[in-house]
Amino acid sequence: IHNFAGHSSSAWARPYRIERDTFGELKVPSNKYYGAQTVRSTMNFKIGGATERMPIQVIKAFGILKRAAAEVNKDYGLDPKIADAIVKAADEVTEGKLDDHFPLVVWQTGSGTQTNMNVNEVISNRAIEILGGKLGSKDPVHPNDHVNKSQSSNDTFPTAMHIAAAKEVHEVLLPGLQTLHDALEAKAAEFKDIIKIGRTHTQDAVPLSLGQEFGGYVQQVKYSIERVKAAMPRVYELAAGGTAVGTGLNTRIGFAEKVAAKVSALTGLPFVTATNKFEALAAHDALVELSGALNTVACSMMKIANDIRFLGSGPRSGLGELILPENEPGSSIMPGKVNPTQCEAMTMVAAQVMGNHVAVTIGGSNGHFELNVFKPMMIKNVLNSARLLGDASVSFTQNCVVGIQANRERINKLMNESLMLVTALNPHIGYDKAATIAKTAHKEGSTLKATAIKLGYLTEEQFDQWVRPQDMLGPK
Amino acid sequence: IHNFAGHSSSAWARPYRIERDTFGELKVPSNKYYGAQTVRSTMNFKIGGATERMPIQVIKAFGILKRAAAEVNKDYGLDPKIADAIVKAADEVTEGKLDDHFPLVVWQTGSGTQTNMNVNEVISNRAIEILGGKLGSKDPVHPNDHVNKSQSSNDTFPTAMHIAAAKEVHEVLLPGLQTLHDALEAKAAEFKDIIKIGRTHTQDAVPLSLGQEFGGYVQQVKYSIERVKAAMPRVYELAAGGTAVGTGLNTRIGFAEKVAAKVSALTGLPFVTATNKFEALAAHDALVELSGALNTVACSMMKIANDIRFLGSGPRSGLGELILPENEPGSSIMPGKVNPTQCEAMTMVAAQVMGNHVAVTIGGSNGHFELNVFKPMMIKNVLNSARLLGDASVSFTQNCVVGIQANRERINKLMNESLMLVTALNPHIGYDKAATIAKTAHKEGSTLKATAIKLGYLTEEQFDQWVRPQDMLGPK
Amino acid sequence: IHNFAGHSSSAWARPYRIERDTFGELKVPSNKYYGAQTVRSTMNFKIGGATERMPIQVIKAFGILKRAAAEVNKDYGLDPKIADAIVKAADEVTEGKLDDHFPLVVWQTGSGTQTNMNVNEVISNRAIEILGGKLGSKDPVHPNDHVNKSQSSNDTFPTAMHIAAAKEVHEVLLPGLQTLHDALEAKAAEFKDIIKIGRTHTQDAVPLSLGQEFGGYVQQVKYSIERVKAAMPRVYELAAGGTAVGTGLNTRIGFAEKVAAKVSALTGLPFVTATNKFEALAAHDALVELSGALNTVACSMMKIANDIRFLGSGPRSGLGELILPENEPGSSIMPGKVNPTQCEAMTMVAAQVMGNHVAVTIGGSNGHFELNVFKPMMIKNVLNSARLLGDASVSFTQNCVVGIQANRERINKLMNESLMLVTALNPHIGYDKAATIAKTAHKEGSTLKATAIKLGYLTEEQFDQWVRPQDMLGPK
Amino acid sequence: IHNFAGHSSSAWARPYRIERDTFGELKVPSNKYYGAQTVRSTMNFKIGGATERMPIQVIKAFGILKRAAAEVNKDYGLDPKIADAIVKAADEVTEGKLDDHFPLVVWQTGSGTQTNMNVNEVISNRAIEILGGKLGSKDPVHPNDHVNKSQSSNDTFPTAMHIAAAKEVHEVLLPGLQTLHDALEAKAAEFKDIIKIGRTHTQDAVPLSLGQEFGGYVQQVKYSIERVKAAMPRVYELAAGGTAVGTGLNTRIGFAEKVAAKVSALTGLPFVTATNKFEALAAHDALVELSGALNTVACSMMKIANDIRFLGSGPRSGLGELILPENEPGSSIMPGKVNPTQCEAMTMVAAQVMGNHVAVTIGGSNGHFELNVFKPMMIKNVLNSARLLGDASVSFTQNCVVGIQANRERINKLMNESLMLVTALNPHIGYDKAATIAKTAHKEGSTLKATAIKLGYLTEEQFDQWVRPQDMLGPK
Repeated sequence: IHNFAGHSSSAWARPYRIERDTFGELKVPSNKYYGAQTVRSTMNFKIGGATERMPIQVIKAFGILKRAAAEVNKDYGLDPKIADAIVKAADEVTEGKLDDHFPLVVWQTGSGTQTNMNVNEVISNRAIEILGGKLGSKDPVHPNDHVNKSQSSNDTFPTAMHIAAAKEVHEVLLPGLQTLHDALEAKAAEFKDIIKIGRTHTQDAVPLSLGQEFGGYVQQVKYSIERVKAAMPRVYELAAGGTAVGTGLNTRIGFAEKVAAKVSALTGLPFVTATNKFEALAAHDALVELSGALNTVACSMMKIANDIRFLGSGPRSGLGELILPENEPGSSIMPGKVNPTQCEAMTMVAAQVMGNHVAVTIGGSNGHFELNVFKPMMIKNVLNSARLLGDASVSFTQNCVVGIQANRERINKLMNESLMLVTALNPHIGYDKAATIAKTAHKEGSTLKATAIKLGYLTEEQFDQWVRPQDMLGPK
Repeated sequence: IHNFAGHSSSAWARPYRIERDTFGELKVPSNKYYGAQTVRSTMNFKIGGATERMPIQVIKAFGILKRAAAEVNKDYGLDPKIADAIVKAADEVTEGKLDDHFPLVVWQTGSGTQTNMNVNEVISNRAIEILGGKLGSKDPVHPNDHVNKSQSSNDTFPTAMHIAAAKEVHEVLLPGLQTLHDALEAKAAEFKDIIKIGRTHTQDAVPLSLGQEFGGYVQQVKYSIERVKAAMPRVYELAAGGTAVGTGLNTRIGFAEKVAAKVSALTGLPFVTATNKFEALAAHDALVELSGALNTVACSMMKIANDIRFLGSGPRSGLGELILPENEPGSSIMPGKVNPTQCEAMTMVAAQVMGNHVAVTIGGSNGHFELNVFKPMMIKNVLNSARLLGDASVSFTQNCVVGIQANRERINKLMNESLMLVTALNPHIGYDKAATIAKTAHKEGSTLKATAIKLGYLTEEQFDQWVRPQDMLGPK
Repeated sequence: IHNFAGHSSSAWARPYRIERDTFGELKVPSNKYYGAQTVRSTMNFKIGGATERMPIQVIKAFGILKRAAAEVNKDYGLDPKIADAIVKAADEVTEGKLDDHFPLVVWQTGSGTQTNMNVNEVISNRAIEILGGKLGSKDPVHPNDHVNKSQSSNDTFPTAMHIAAAKEVHEVLLPGLQTLHDALEAKAAEFKDIIKIGRTHTQDAVPLSLGQEFGGYVQQVKYSIERVKAAMPRVYELAAGGTAVGTGLNTRIGFAEKVAAKVSALTGLPFVTATNKFEALAAHDALVELSGALNTVACSMMKIANDIRFLGSGPRSGLGELILPENEPGSSIMPGKVNPTQCEAMTMVAAQVMGNHVAVTIGGSNGHFELNVFKPMMIKNVLNSARLLGDASVSFTQNCVVGIQANRERINKLMNESLMLVTALNPHIGYDKAATIAKTAHKEGSTLKATAIKLGYLTEEQFDQWVRPQDMLGPK
Repeated sequence: IHNFAGHSSSAWARPYRIERDTFGELKVPSNKYYGAQTVRSTMNFKIGGATERMPIQVIKAFGILKRAAAEVNKDYGLDPKIADAIVKAADEVTEGKLDDHFPLVVWQTGSGTQTNMNVNEVISNRAIEILGGKLGSKDPVHPNDHVNKSQSSNDTFPTAMHIAAAKEVHEVLLPGLQTLHDALEAKAAEFKDIIKIGRTHTQDAVPLSLGQEFGGYVQQVKYSIERVKAAMPRVYELAAGGTAVGTGLNTRIGFAEKVAAKVSALTGLPFVTATNKFEALAAHDALVELSGALNTVACSMMKIANDIRFLGSGPRSGLGELILPENEPGSSIMPGKVNPTQCEAMTMVAAQVMGNHVAVTIGGSNGHFELNVFKPMMIKNVLNSARLLGDASVSFTQNCVVGIQANRERINKLMNESLMLVTALNPHIGYDKAATIAKTAHKEGSTLKATAIKLGYLTEEQFDQWVRPQDMLGPK
């Protein structure tokens, strides 16, 4: 669609057109919709290159916001022809049809002004094109006066941040966590009758069922979902309508509420206008809070993935209780080696999320007066964390969790050899005698039963009656 | 009360008594209630010294738990005489009467086993004393068999962690935040009619009222309180009843629920038994989550304290809009200097809380199998964060916020000189002409009005009518 | 060059060829050099998408390593024809000619095995092509037996990490810091005679010269360079030759040293073989250390950029001592606004680097036994930090520092009005009287001189003689 | 000594004396040497209580500095009687005789001014006492004019920070690390002939010797020591002589150098005067750098302690290759349980140090203009990290490392059963056949030898000749 229709072929002979901003004229590539301010930013911020571009989710969120604002502005009197063209162009941004027109990096002005202007320029030029005008003419659709009407970077960028974060959470993170939760829950059910040795301090302890062990993971993921959801109410608050400093200067009464309602309708998410626009521009505590929830999720993921790789360690010299799916050759030198690579991807993701969280925290703490100017950095990290956790949860589920098998033979063997079953004797012969049995059996490499009998503390029948792992899985 | 009544004076001639654990005999100071395992820990963990002791809040929380467990155990058949003595001794622990008997440091076993045993030993010996027995005899009150009955370090320590954290939040943190909130709210009301220049990117921007600016802080503190509260439901879950690995081995059905109910009654906080005991022992995501809330609070505090010190900077060469209370001489070399020391204490606290949060995160992510063994470190940091934020909020409120005065003269002067008032001309003469006025006035050091008239863009009457700061504080 | 010459056009009709690894057959895109293991990784690790690809610097470092290994293997008997083809293909990797053939993301196996195999596959297929063979045939150049000869992922990946990190430091970071250092040093010289008010606690303090103030920044950048350099000796240690667990199994004596020497010759950097290969595989302390240096650099950058934006704040209501270059329109709503955007980009980068550092730290602490499996995540963050700091230093220098002007008029005015000049009176009339003068002048809004005379503490002549800012810039 | 000799007993009847600062009069406890400013700080900063006191190491470092300054001031003309009394009192501070007179918490003014004044007050009052004067009279020894002569809090506090940090590093951290290094080195030698299975990705891999494995740890600790030492040169730089803003106002030429020389002589450490005093007051990059080194040490410790606890896991159901010393009863419920508690203390310390590092980083990044005001928080964390790492290294060494035994029987068994020995067949029968042997043996639960023969790939003699673990420990 964005084939620059309406331009004579001679126009294409020139690779650049001239656009201007308040700082002067600049050459703009002929095949791009963006304008002078975007080009200026690419010249002033050569930091990190293409891999450091503003996350495309932010751009798409801007598409939603710009459409919502145009529709509300139309209600307040904006020429419907202009408004409709903006809506159409904004939709194309949201649909990802114009991704190539957003070259700016995260490391720009801390308010995201240049990305807001990039969006304004692309939408105005594309709307001009739709209306048959000349690219760069700002006529009949002006990037500031029309696309940015009743808006400021200072309220639009945080609005786009919240839209993007909420969508990523709902579209990637929560479904990913739910997928993992369900798979773990199914495994917990599958494993509910397998009794195994417990381990505390990484050392042998009293038994539990493998289902109970997986049940702990299920609970962690369940709470992960709850934690993320608990952080969302404040993310659903949109700054739009605050304009430059939070007062709403140059907007109309009701604009803020209407825009939030439109965004809510467009996304299906319960966005509302921010309770306090000053807070919404000057602080991004809501994203620090969300990042904190993601950080907690990361801790849960680290625990679960670590456990699974250790329980699946071996095949001969590890714990060997779980058999993990073999997905790829494990070693370029050791034939036949299989590694818990999904666990490794997950734990790396967890570490990254914890690091991202610190970056978000530092950015969030350093706002000054009416504006926090760590916006692009903050949203980059929040989106990255949400995406990585969501994607990794799906990958981990599909390529690892669903294929986990219990090595029942090994589990049984370890459980039956365990010295900690002696704990069941406490009520019968006392802690001290029980300890003597365990220590003696350990020293002599013998079994608990043989040692207990040899020490004369009880009979074989008593041992068999009292030491029953299946009776040790719950209170009496 | 703990004057070791009942011991003959000759006993006091010997500075030590002999106690034993399963590892052998040890000398225990005669004037201490703790026993062999406590002494052993002091020998094995000489790390950090007295300043690194287990937080006393954990010890007091243990007092509550041990009382609750004794009462429930009595319901289940524990000798009432023993149970009552445990209750009495446990109360003394909770009341802080036995603080000197808890010498262990945080850097011990990661399950907190040694602190659990320290508590068991102190309570059993004190209960023995109450019952007229001999210290160290374990008779008639045994530290393991009676004080620790139906318990394991693995479930008691996390229970004490949650009790201590919840109490600190309710007794120190939330009241502190509320105090700050109320003071800021009063200031916002007091300052509501003072119009001042806004600042974005630390640069001059359009005006807002000083009340609006403080209103942003009020919102941050309001949400701080909400965030902390939102994290509490999972902190109210108690691990007690899970014993060694979460199965509840060696407890009775109903024990877990009854203990939680007792703790709730004793504290007035809505504690419940943990939904999943395996999760409650093996992971401490609830504390990571709480720490994440504290981290967000720290970001809010950093923003507010930074703003106030910059707005109060001067007296001659800073922004000078606020006059901060003078609390102490500011300089040992510069006479008459006054510094924003309360802001400095607060921002240092904020930085500490952010660091504590990383420690908690790392500890929380590194549990293995049925037990997380970073427990003492985690609770130390959570308690420290809660305490510091709560105390600093009160100090900051009382010694700074309530005494803040607006420097109306200075605020007015800056506001009237501001070039950004030109924004009000956008709807009348357009962004480009408005920009020309602002840039010309800046270059010539002139006023907006003089420049606007000189440039012939409008009349004096129009300027006075259009550029009215009091009309720029909200949407139209 | 990689136009797949030698393949009949009919081959191109099929979009896929079939390759196999030990797990079976897979379809590989016909126009890609990579093989089955690479494809398998793209199927198993759908985490984050294209923006999360393995940093291209790692791929290029692998090109250097694979060339070095091939040359050393030739010395040890590898068929020269094969070795030479590997060298040629590896050079193309290093030169960036084959960038499109490395689709894998960071979030894969934690050893980077799949990227090592990606490189092996691309080089072997390209070498096969050079030698006229059939892509995917593994003949005459086998990815494992020839390209990976005497190597394991476990030693090659950390080798590539160190090569990539050292090159980024030398090619991007250090030149960037030097550029910034030189520009600040020039400014310090330019500003050496401008006397200004000092600020401590953000409050007015005794004077210093603007050159002295910038001299502090110069020192910070100078030490930044030293700190980074101080971390490099351990980064120059290469793991190559350790193979799977550090023993060097399946390599030849001397291989490790020769490879390091080759890499050193190819890069011009003083790489050596690692002192202890077990440490070099199982821990990446050297990268944690380097990241720690980058973290310190980030702190320096945050301080400098913060100072410059505050000193340049205004134009009317800030400190206004510096005039920062105007690079772009500052506001989409406020005409004429200019913002310290380069400072903002720099401080965002600083926050990111601090977050990256935590991710690196967590990854670095979580190695187990003979291998750390957070390798891709660690190097991604280290490279990102080095690149961002280097690029931002250049951007900040060129677009901000070199254009900074001192607002001499404003600086003079603030300095002369300062009450802290009273400090110069301490030796003459004592701290107490000096304090009285300062506090009285502050209260009355008067000058120090007028107040001092009015209070009768000294004469006008004495004041003029004693209070001379130019005499307050150093010890006597 | 500080029994307040010279005061009549009637003086002791009053519990308070009256002292004054520029803010007015205050009651000071009669039995304390501190004065009004200290009391004022205790009133204004009720944050955290006694456990949050300024680290005593900072106080003692101040003792050294105040002595050095007094001696240099004597050279420049300070009354020798006063100087000598200051020296004597300062020595008592350094020797810890006056610890009870320093009640201030960390959470005070960010410059540490109040602690500097606390020291000035204590030393002046003690010196007054020594000279027979009246406490609180400031005569004949004035806290500002004499004890603080040629000094400012802004240069003395950072000087004390560096002295305290350097001493803690030299007296606690480095000896602790050396102790650990030597013990690990001895174990590496003891274990050098024990061949064991290697583990990569936590999975079975090719063999190495237990001595080689411990050798990796030795290298980590060796480099830990080097890293800490590499950070010290900038810590040895002292700010003294910079006074209020770094210019050295009110000091004498040469004062800075002489004080550094005196401090060096008093401590035996190579302190020098800071190259740039502006940097030394406004930034604390040197401490961020040192903290970064400690953070790297923490990563090393985490790795080593984790390995040892996993290798020592069991006794029946873990890896069981190491036998760790039994130091205390491991469980209050499970008889006979022994836990790797020293590893747990160490890993908790490591997590704390990583968190402390983030606090230090945030503080270090937030200096403004001529002063960083996160000083007390920063030094508290650096000292805590150094102390904990040093103490934990000693505890870990004495209570764990020196007592580690190799479980040779278990190690042998695991090694001989390992499938990864198949790697040795690569050069003889190729990677593919080797992989088939390993996978078949794994599936059938058979040995490599039996499977290899059964598959007809080689003879028993060939197997015995080719698969020799002792030949797999190095290159050929």
